[in-house]
Amino acid sequence: MLTRVKSAVANFMGGMMAGGSNGDHPGGSDLPLKYPYSRPEFLGLSPDEIECSADHIARPILILKESKRLPWSTGYAEVINAGKSTLNEDQACCEVLVVKRRPAGISTPNRTPTTRRRSSLPNGEGSGPRDCPESSDNLTFHYWAMFDGHAGSGAAVMAARLLHHHIALHLQEVMEIICNPNLTTPTCLGEEPINHHLTPTTSQRALTRAASLRGAAGAPGSPSTPPTRFFTEKKVSHESLVVGAIENAFKDMDVQIEKEKAVYNVSGGCTALAVVYLLGKLYVGNAGDSRAIIIRAGEVIPMSAEFTPESERQRLQFLAYMQPHLLGNEFTHLEFPRRVQRKEVGKRMLYRDFTMSGWAYKTIEDDDLKFPLIYGEGKKARVLATIGVTRGLGDHNLKVHDSNIYIKPFLSCCPEVKVYPLAQCEHGADDVLVLGTDGLWDVLSNQEVAEAVTCFLANCDPDDQHRYTMAAQDLVMRARGVLKDRGWRISNDRLGSGDDISVYIIPLVYGNQQN
Amino acid sequence: MLTRVKSAVANFMGGMMAGGSNGDHPGGSDLPLKYPYSRPEFLGLSPDEIECSADHIARPILILKESKRLPWSTGYAEVINAGKSTLNEDQACCEVLVVKRRPAGISTPNRTPTTRRRSSLPNGEGSGPRDCPESSDNLTFHYWAMFDGHAGSGAAVMAARLLHHHIALHLQEVMEIICNPNLTTPTCLGEEPINHHLTPTTSQRALTRAASLRGAAGAPGSPSTPPTRFFTEKKVSHESLVVGAIENAFKDMDVQIEKEKAVYNVSGGCTALAVVYLLGKLYVGNAGDSRAIIIRAGEVIPMSAEFTPESERQRLQFLAYMQPHLLGNEFTHLEFPRRVQRKEVGKRMLYRDFTMSGWAYKTIEDDDLKFPLIYGEGKKARVLATIGVTRGLGDHNLKVHDSNIYIKPFLSCCPEVKVYPLAQCEHGADDVLVLGTDGLWDVLSNQEVAEAVTCFLANCDPDDQHRYTMAAQDLVMRARGVLKDRGWRISNDRLGSGDDISVYIIPLVYGNQQN
Repeated sequence: MLTRVKSAVANFMGGMMAGGSNGDHPGGSDLPLKYPYSRPEFLGLSPDEIECSADHIARPILILKESKRLPWSTGYAEVINAGKSTLNEDQACCEVLVVKRRPAGISTPNRTPTTRRRSSLPNGEGSGPRDCPESSDNLTFHYWAMFDGHAGSGAAVMAARLLHHHIALHLQEVMEIICNPNLTTPTCLGEEPINHHLTPTTSQRALTRAASLRGAAGAPGSPSTPPTRFFTEKKVSHESLVVGAIENAFKDMDVQIEKEKAVYNVSGGCTALAVVYLLGKLYVGNAGDSRAIIIRAGEVIPMSAEFTPESERQRLQFLAYMQPHLLGNEFTHLEFPRRVQRKEVGKRMLYRDFTMSGWAYKTIEDDDLKFPLIYGEGKKARVLATIGVTRGLGDHNLKVHDSNIYIKPFLSCCPEVKVYPLAQCEHGADDVLVLGTDGLWDVLSNQEVAEAVTCFLANCDPDDQHRYTMAAQDLVMRARGVLKDRGWRISNDRLGSGDDISVYIIPLVYGNQQN
Repeated sequence: MLTRVKSAVANFMGGMMAGGSNGDHPGGSDLPLKYPYSRPEFLGLSPDEIECSADHIARPILILKESKRLPWSTGYAEVINAGKSTLNEDQACCEVLVVKRRPAGISTPNRTPTTRRRSSLPNGEGSGPRDCPESSDNLTFHYWAMFDGHAGSGAAVMAARLLHHHIALHLQEVMEIICNPNLTTPTCLGEEPINHHLTPTTSQRALTRAASLRGAAGAPGSPSTPPTRFFTEKKVSHESLVVGAIENAFKDMDVQIEKEKAVYNVSGGCTALAVVYLLGKLYVGNAGDSRAIIIRAGEVIPMSAEFTPESERQRLQFLAYMQPHLLGNEFTHLEFPRRVQRKEVGKRMLYRDFTMSGWAYKTIEDDDLKFPLIYGEGKKARVLATIGVTRGLGDHNLKVHDSNIYIKPFLSCCPEVKVYPLAQCEHGADDVLVLGTDGLWDVLSNQEVAEAVTCFLANCDPDDQHRYTMAAQDLVMRARGVLKDRGWRISNDRLGSGDDISVYIIPLVYGNQQN
């Protein structure tokens, strides 16, 4: 009997480890996995525990064990979906990394990771003196990220393993600058400052381009242009370098997924929400529909915006208008309130194009019978009738069903990065950064989350390091709800989320202690 | 002597009426003018007064005469630039229009204007009972607009004469809907509501497109998709129809300028800021760098955002990346903090592309020696080294100096429309909407304007209908300053604006009285 159970478990786990069968890469199953499916490393789960967690009926909430510690006493909890996919397609990663300076004389980027984890991590990092004092040789950053996969877990698993290394590589390139607060960001590396007034640029023709309108010196009819106008130099802040590093790290991660798909089975795609704490500031990079909010003294400060077919409609329609071949002669870049029917050709119907936020009527033509690029409302809105999120990693092979139309050109891997000057603000023990996948935010508003967290933490022992994980568990519970009459129900008899739900609660007071 | 002076004046005016010599259409001077240069019609200036106003040394401030009245007792003042162009390139228009219903049975748009001015306008409109009660036969709207021209006054003059007619035409198309507050906006005109559950759409193939990701019904691995999902119908508000009407009116105005350039001399381009008051709401459409703010109880509510090379950098870079031929092999879509020099090829320099808001280093290649698409900072930022504003009307013939590269593809004629629910808010006599061209906002902040206007109005006789014009005059004076040591100086010895400056001050309390 035991053997039969074990065998069933082994089969189940085998299926899980293969990354699920609903990938976007039908031929991919012949390729080896780059990384097996798992739950976040910091949870420290055994294979048995992972199996038990994947119960779509009971939906047990997984939390960080008391014996495990994350930086800043970060809290974490998660639950699997109610059956929409075999695996929990959310993934998470939390690390403290030390970036080492590149050997001198190497001016091109060294693509070998030179980061290392802080030795005390992921367990037992305290708030005592740091083992790696900040210098231009060692740059420490804290990192929290969550990834919400779709059409397979491969991309989410890979991004959870690697995105922070890409961030570290890009930070490494600028660490000598950003570690020196008095240093002006050099425009060009490895050269003396240029005397702009004495050195002519290469193109004399550009210099004579004085036909500059709108009233500045050089406008037609105004006195002649002083050529120095073309030599002004923009000042770039250290903060902008970190933002640029995170932006380019997302792009590199996406390129790596694409490349490794040639030799590994990396299924699906994922959203990515990554937080970097560096030199007193929090950087929140978001590509997708996860969300980050800061709760400070009970007030909500949004730290991300969601990227969905509705929020990015005009960008996507603009791209389709510019490159109509991407629509494969099957879709139209115009939006209509519903599908157009053949009998309506010649009538006037509401539409909007990429330039419009309002609506107007147009006479329907044959071309308008094509399926709209963006269609549906709210959570049901889709790009090319296929995908409900417009930024993220992976999805390189994703096509419109039964066609050769690729989705990827419409998806962006570029995050929006928001910055919070943590060290400049005072924080109490109940001030936190909450990160959640859409499973949380689909059913709870920012205000509901803020009230729940504030209320929960106020009732905890302030010295209990586990309180943030308990608060995260409470949030997941509130979003999942309880099983009643065959459905998951939350407060006021609303429907609970049937999606995977993952939540970080990061206390901000530890950031203040680091500085 | 008198004869000689008169002759000089005639020559001067002849030059002015020809639209100036700094147009963007060198051949255009052979074509007849569609409309002569003038100042806003509501100022009621004589040719002599127009001549005196064009004094670049004295810069007299023109205001609405006490004998002239604008709707809602709107105040207006303007001043010419300090010499950057011969003519005042700002233009303005203010009207109350009545849209008449199209004859029944005509389902295609009737392109003949069917609007008329309110008989009592522009002089003497009171706040008494209206002569045209609102009905589905007569739709009244109030209209204020300002246009800031460049490279000639032709486009601004034409837009000031015609934009409101385009708005009226588009409103006419939807007036039967928006005049009936209980009517749901029909998706398709002239047909019975469709029973979506019984009528299949034309494309069965699209119906089977159930490969929809991100967890909604129809995702792979989840229960089968109910086909009704594809029949959901978006609800479109009446407000969205007005927004769409204004958006499309701007586009039609731009097309008309382009067409009439073939037969008339229509020089240059212009920004456009247009306000429509209709059925209890203010709609503020902006394409350019003019600005509208509401001042309510001394607090500022921004009603527009500026479109400049800096604010639209990513849109422009994206377009250039998608359609590199628009750069004529002379410009690069990348941004650098300054011009790249040939000796820097191979070195690493700061850059950013359309995906980035931060900065990073890249290895400089030969291609990076091209001039950047966006270059310069603040008021000196330029697109293609030519123009400092990225939305507006006209400019169809504008090219990069000494090249065949057109600017127009990068300029958008589409406004952003913001809505203010005027009738739902209480207003006092000192609550106003301020519209100003960039000449005002370049030197005064929103806060400074709000304080100046609030303070000025508080010291006026509340029954003085001329108070809003006096407040507008005060603002223009504060932005122009006084001539000191050969320069225009404003408070705190800052530089005054040397640009054309135009200001409307529109009291909001009259809007409340109309409802």
